[in-house]
Amino acid sequence: MIVDISKKILIVGLGLLGGSYAKVLKRFGFHISAITKEQSSIDYALSEHLIDEGTTEIDERIIGEADLVIFALYPHIFVEWIEKHQGLLKSGALITDVTGVKGKIVYKIQEMLRDDVEFIAAHPMAGREVSGVENSTDKMFSGANYIVTPTAKNTPEAIQTCMELGRLLGFSNVTTLSPEEHDEMIGFLSQLTHCIAITLMTCNDKENMEKFTGDSFRDLTRIARINDLMWSELFVENKEALLEQMNLFIDKFHELKVMLETEDVDGMRKMMRYSTERRALFDKK
Amino acid sequence: MIVDISKKILIVGLGLLGGSYAKVLKRFGFHISAITKEQSSIDYALSEHLIDEGTTEIDERIIGEADLVIFALYPHIFVEWIEKHQGLLKSGALITDVTGVKGKIVYKIQEMLRDDVEFIAAHPMAGREVSGVENSTDKMFSGANYIVTPTAKNTPEAIQTCMELGRLLGFSNVTTLSPEEHDEMIGFLSQLTHCIAITLMTCNDKENMEKFTGDSFRDLTRIARINDLMWSELFVENKEALLEQMNLFIDKFHELKVMLETEDVDGMRKMMRYSTERRALFDKK
Repeated sequence: MIVDISKKILIVGLGLLGGSYAKVLKRFGFHISAITKEQSSIDYALSEHLIDEGTTEIDERIIGEADLVIFALYPHIFVEWIEKHQGLLKSGALITDVTGVKGKIVYKIQEMLRDDVEFIAAHPMAGREVSGVENSTDKMFSGANYIVTPTAKNTPEAIQTCMELGRLLGFSNVTTLSPEEHDEMIGFLSQLTHCIAITLMTCNDKENMEKFTGDSFRDLTRIARINDLMWSELFVENKEALLEQMNLFIDKFHELKVMLETEDVDGMRKMMRYSTERRALFDKK
Repeated sequence: MIVDISKKILIVGLGLLGGSYAKVLKRFGFHISAITKEQSSIDYALSEHLIDEGTTEIDERIIGEADLVIFALYPHIFVEWIEKHQGLLKSGALITDVTGVKGKIVYKIQEMLRDDVEFIAAHPMAGREVSGVENSTDKMFSGANYIVTPTAKNTPEAIQTCMELGRLLGFSNVTTLSPEEHDEMIGFLSQLTHCIAITLMTCNDKENMEKFTGDSFRDLTRIARINDLMWSELFVENKEALLEQMNLFIDKFHELKVMLETEDVDGMRKMMRYSTERRALFDKK
């Protein structure tokens, strides 16, 4: 199946990401349905014309009609949903997700899934500090990465369709990684950074420091405002890869501390020059 | 001396900060002179009307005429300058600085300084990732903090004048701290954040990660592009306070790591909620 606008798309989980997907895809003319927990999210999405129809129930017709189902749920809820309701999916349907960890999820879902439905996993690397469908925006994906994580079980067609979906959504960079490569990458680039931010934010609770802060501290702690339910789950689901990245960070931080203790200025300057050089690679192009 | 526009101001060290000071103060009508290392900086500042006169020499007339001298130099160069040239300062002159560490500098300078000249230290908490007088801007100080760090040797008049200077420059928040309080604060809010950023930037040198990065990693490493000469000196000059902050960070990071290893989700969520709550204090007002 290649994405064409005669296809019906179902979004399960209408939060910030699900809502933003709906907003972009609706504009292309797809028929969009949604299933989510709160009636208020459905009401909002209908009133803003993000979706054509939606429900808080497990609606057999809506599920059975969908050619493409996008799961925008917490990892364990996604797994539970498939366990309980996969019988309702249309034969030949393609399902994909937005889950931020892959190794622990992708194989589990593919293992349990019916043979006539294919799951191709993807991670849209975009987010905001706010959540909920009310904060949906069609501007969120420009400049961002969309990573498809196929396994040996996936067909070339499903991989193509999923990459096409990423491009339709407006992601600037659509690529593939194995689930393992993805988890290592995300452990470093996203999860380790969140670990650092929450540690920095909580390691010194002296009062009144906000009166003296500059932009550096604000930048390093922007993501210290964090959805505790989601991130604690993501951390645990990617435990091994994240611990490995935490250890890399700890070792290097310890090196820096020893250089400071011994006043090894040359060593510190060398590290700073390498840091400066590497940072240039990460500038927005 | 209260700052009035009949006073002559000398800026020693015409880089990003010195140049930005000149730009703002010149607009108020002060007579601004400058002494700096490179003739090209003087030429630029003259052509842009940031200063009235300037030289790369130790000019006795210019130094002897200044009522207020602002030192915008690296810490050790500032100390050397005072050792060598303080005899040229006008009797009754007030001197101040922009140095990012205080304990190691303020007492040393006040100790060696002539009795008829007063040094009142200040730290303008503003900066950019670029340096040099060519990047001077009069927009840099709005929203930023200006911290005066008086000691028992300072007169109330000098403290007042220095605070008035901070307000004239356009800083939004002008306060005083003891040199020791300042160094602890700066060790945490500024130096620790730079230590973290350069560690994160250098702890994993796997290739191609820039293709997958999101804004979180970019935010946490913005300041990983760093002036190695200046920051290694600032770190060493504030060694004790910075090591203390690094240890606070290490202890808390270790706590988080243990919670992840033991899958203590409640503990992680508690830390994340505290992080979220504290981060709200640091929002720009």
